[in-house]
Amino acid sequence: MNELEILQLIESKQYKQLKSILSEMNEVDIAEILDPLDTNTTLLIFRMLPKDLAVEVFAHFSTEQQREIINAVTDKELTYILDELFFDDMIDIIEEMPSNIVNKILKNSTQEERNLINQFLKYPESSAGSLMTIEYVELRKTMIVKEALAHLKETGLNKETIYTCYVTDKKRTLEGIVSLRTLVTSDDDVLISDIMQDEVIFVNTHDDQETVANVFKKYGFLALPVVDNENRLTGIITVDDIVDVMEQEATEDFQRMAAMAPSDVAYLDTSVFNLAKHRITWLLILMLSATFTGRIIAKFNEVLQSVVILASFIPMLMDTGGNSGNQSSTLIIRGLATGEIELKDKFKVLWKEFRVGIIVGITLSITNFIRLLVIEKVELKVALTVSLTLIVTVLMAKMVGGVLPIIAKTLKIDPAIMAGPLITTLVDAISLTVYFSIATLLLGI
Amino acid sequence: MNELEILQLIESKQYKQLKSILSEMNEVDIAEILDPLDTNTTLLIFRMLPKDLAVEVFAHFSTEQQREIINAVTDKELTYILDELFFDDMIDIIEEMPSNIVNKILKNSTQEERNLINQFLKYPESSAGSLMTIEYVELRKTMIVKEALAHLKETGLNKETIYTCYVTDKKRTLEGIVSLRTLVTSDDDVLISDIMQDEVIFVNTHDDQETVANVFKKYGFLALPVVDNENRLTGIITVDDIVDVMEQEATEDFQRMAAMAPSDVAYLDTSVFNLAKHRITWLLILMLSATFTGRIIAKFNEVLQSVVILASFIPMLMDTGGNSGNQSSTLIIRGLATGEIELKDKFKVLWKEFRVGIIVGITLSITNFIRLLVIEKVELKVALTVSLTLIVTVLMAKMVGGVLPIIAKTLKIDPAIMAGPLITTLVDAISLTVYFSIATLLLGI
Repeated sequence: MNELEILQLIESKQYKQLKSILSEMNEVDIAEILDPLDTNTTLLIFRMLPKDLAVEVFAHFSTEQQREIINAVTDKELTYILDELFFDDMIDIIEEMPSNIVNKILKNSTQEERNLINQFLKYPESSAGSLMTIEYVELRKTMIVKEALAHLKETGLNKETIYTCYVTDKKRTLEGIVSLRTLVTSDDDVLISDIMQDEVIFVNTHDDQETVANVFKKYGFLALPVVDNENRLTGIITVDDIVDVMEQEATEDFQRMAAMAPSDVAYLDTSVFNLAKHRITWLLILMLSATFTGRIIAKFNEVLQSVVILASFIPMLMDTGGNSGNQSSTLIIRGLATGEIELKDKFKVLWKEFRVGIIVGITLSITNFIRLLVIEKVELKVALTVSLTLIVTVLMAKMVGGVLPIIAKTLKIDPAIMAGPLITTLVDAISLTVYFSIATLLLGI
Repeated sequence: MNELEILQLIESKQYKQLKSILSEMNEVDIAEILDPLDTNTTLLIFRMLPKDLAVEVFAHFSTEQQREIINAVTDKELTYILDELFFDDMIDIIEEMPSNIVNKILKNSTQEERNLINQFLKYPESSAGSLMTIEYVELRKTMIVKEALAHLKETGLNKETIYTCYVTDKKRTLEGIVSLRTLVTSDDDVLISDIMQDEVIFVNTHDDQETVANVFKKYGFLALPVVDNENRLTGIITVDDIVDVMEQEATEDFQRMAAMAPSDVAYLDTSVFNLAKHRITWLLILMLSATFTGRIIAKFNEVLQSVVILASFIPMLMDTGGNSGNQSSTLIIRGLATGEIELKDKFKVLWKEFRVGIIVGITLSITNFIRLLVIEKVELKVALTVSLTLIVTVLMAKMVGGVLPIIAKTLKIDPAIMAGPLITTLVDAISLTVYFSIATLLLGI
């Protein structure tokens, strides 16, 4: 059944058939189809879905549609939705809602829930605490497998995951984990303490989401426990949320590296004004700093005036320098983000980039020298000036590009900011100074 | 127990204590500690680990260490390793090994395994087939829950995941899926056909890994079935492999966008020669194309000679154009990769970039105009020339940057290639032509 056929069923009000088809579908697909419809239609179909499915669909609606629905439903319906939503989804929704909607939500929560919501809203954005959920399975190490499975059968449907179970004591101290695979493949009367893993890898509520994502990537976990400063289990993070985090972190790095303020709103959903706002600041900074490069040219006015052909090589030198630096900084920034490169590697990186710069610089320089003499038929001294500058430019660009991101990270600045555009500006200035200095020497101006 | 303490235990040959500590540790951490050691030491400790753990550690060794170990172990040990390795890990290893090692592996496999290995080696790199594994749980719809759980108890330890079970008929046609959560929360005598999900989302063996990753991201699955052209289940892909794919795909896009040949070898593990090789081609192409920009300057030689100050604004115009285009192309390339932007959106993108270009262009231009008049005290006509060029440059850069990646995708070229560097070169040429044309007109040269 494709989207078009379903929309036709909605149009022709064949609700009975619609209901039976939607009930078999994945919640993500249903949300995708209903989301663009007007609220009345969405609400009508939303109310006809099996209740559990309806809540799952709700969690995948856009913020706007969620707001409209919360506005429109009865208090009883809202209480049901809130009870069935996973806690992390509820927090995400509350964070996006205007205050009148938040009030309606809080009014329909118990005092205990309200306390919990307040606690979760306090975790810094992009911390482990803001990613975690509280619907996990708790076991005691004195249980036997049969009891654990009975406990799961009773409570399992309301947990975000039951595939990793957490063994805690009365104070909620995390004592071990046991996977459902282990439970299912063990005999009924085995003690949990005999099959649980004691050495548990966990994160702290205040750890950054990039750190959390790197733990998932390293170990291939499905879920990870989050503990507070007293080692008490406060929540778990599941891999599906980490998949989103990875995508979001990569997108932010792409944006920062292209000299933009990062945003996690989809391009097509961002207003023209906001797109412009995110771009202008860096363009202004870079434009003003590029004027210093202009001053260098102005300073060497006389050189230019006597050998005006020198001007025509400026774009090639600037672009090649920029591209060379961009290549290096991109590799290093990405390596720092994925944890492949660490701060202690800075001399290794510098030495590596130095050698790469030599190879690349000489290759480009020779190619260019031959081209200038044979094809462009330029004077020997001019060709020499341009080609020598090229080696220095590439070498400088590679080393600056390699080291600036590491320095940024040392200073706790996001390395992605030290990407191409900033390095280009810096390399431009160096390369033009070198260019005109060599020209002055060689051409005897 | 940290790495240093373990290395001390190894040094002082306290093997008994070492064994008991390592047995409790995560396989990834053990591999990380043993990998850099010499093969004799690694092998010694490797052999002292519990067999199942040893195989898991082996799967996380570097290719070099794996090669050394396969070389050194007896045929009996190798057969054990191969039997216990998950099939997708084995294929990954075989793909990286030299032929003498592959021969040793094949010699220690059964005829059936050899056929399977050959089949898997034929799947194109970065296809769903090359990611999948064959260790999944198969159920029949005529089973009851109790039988299914008994089947899992018997075979579950040797499966890559048991959390999603696949319901097939005798011909291996995929009829449905049932999660272990559903099994564990259902009564013993319920029929699988009554609790399985019939509407299964799956991929084909030849689907690209980026498509597969987007399915995981959209639905938040833990595993996804892979079927052949006859709809027969041929394998499954698990989310941990997708986490790796996402990281790899993002890294490749970063590299392509910075004008490099993509590579999935870690920066610090790549030789200087290989780093240089991956960078030179694009630098050469871009260097040669930048000479066309140089020709434009050469062509307007006279303009420059009469108003030599014009040269000093070239860097600012080039950099601003490049940065503006880079911002747009980055957003669009990333949007295309994550599936947020589709080919059909090209006119929406063009129109959006046009409006953003107007806002950004005018803002930059006015700032620059004031700066030139007030701070630099430049002649009015020159300031006008530079500022008008700036608007046109930014506008052109935004539109070219927005549309080229979409055109590339339409032509089935990787959009990431249409990133900053290429667009910069194009925008440079446009902006300098505009600059000198306006100058000729306004300054009456």
